[in-house]
Amino acid sequence: MNALSDLKFDANGLIPAVVQDGEEGRVLMVGYMNREAVERTIATGRVTYWSRSRQKYWVKGESSGNIQKLIGLYVDCDQDCLLVVAEQVGPACHEGYRSCFFRKISAESDTLDLSEERLKDPTEMYSAAAP
Amino acid sequence: MNALSDLKFDANGLIPAVVQDGEEGRVLMVGYMNREAVERTIATGRVTYWSRSRQKYWVKGESSGNIQKLIGLYVDCDQDCLLVVAEQVGPACHEGYRSCFFRKISAESDTLDLSEERLKDPTEMYSAAAP
Repeated sequence: MNALSDLKFDANGLIPAVVQDGEEGRVLMVGYMNREAVERTIATGRVTYWSRSRQKYWVKGESSGNIQKLIGLYVDCDQDCLLVVAEQVGPACHEGYRSCFFRKISAESDTLDLSEERLKDPTEMYSAAAP
Repeated sequence: MNALSDLKFDANGLIPAVVQDGEEGRVLMVGYMNREAVERTIATGRVTYWSRSRQKYWVKGESSGNIQKLIGLYVDCDQDCLLVVAEQVGPACHEGYRSCFFRKISAESDTLDLSEERLKDPTEMYSAAAP
């Protein structure tokens, strides 16, 4: 795709993708995509990453059901970062929180404070895949 | 700081920081911080990055006046990404747009479409520093 040819992928062929909830506007997570993951996301409407830990394509929600439906895809001025606006089903975070950014850094106490309630028990989210 | 000791910086000692407008909720930009930039951001209340291109600390807005005042700092589940909620003065983008994500990828036409109006002429933003 022409619009993608100027994207700047890093030395590992990846570009960070910030995901924002299309309804509530919350920042949900940051994932990484290679060029094919970007193309798959556009073609399928399901947000798809390259998993750095598993070294494979990762259709968000494929095991948990907590899929992300693509609403809009934006590129930043330097073309080295993407913004994915998506409809998030259930929690975005594998720990069961709506957003992966569920902890706030408290400057006063040097601690991490929970900033939201857990939506789901992670063991239930992945029960089908659990041993 | 204890809350920062578990942050996972990459091989270059950097962690990506997504910046969200504390008022409008828009995602404004993604910058990179090293540990000291995180500490400076917390200590001063002015969002401060490590500029990868200039290899120096970069207090956002130091030349343009378009500063970012820290409202809240969040860490993700993997502790390898930060979310900065900030009050953004003027445009966040050096090209004069409120957000660096001012272009939408159009899947239909394989093009980048402007998704917002420019707030300021970039030549005016940096006029004091211009040659």
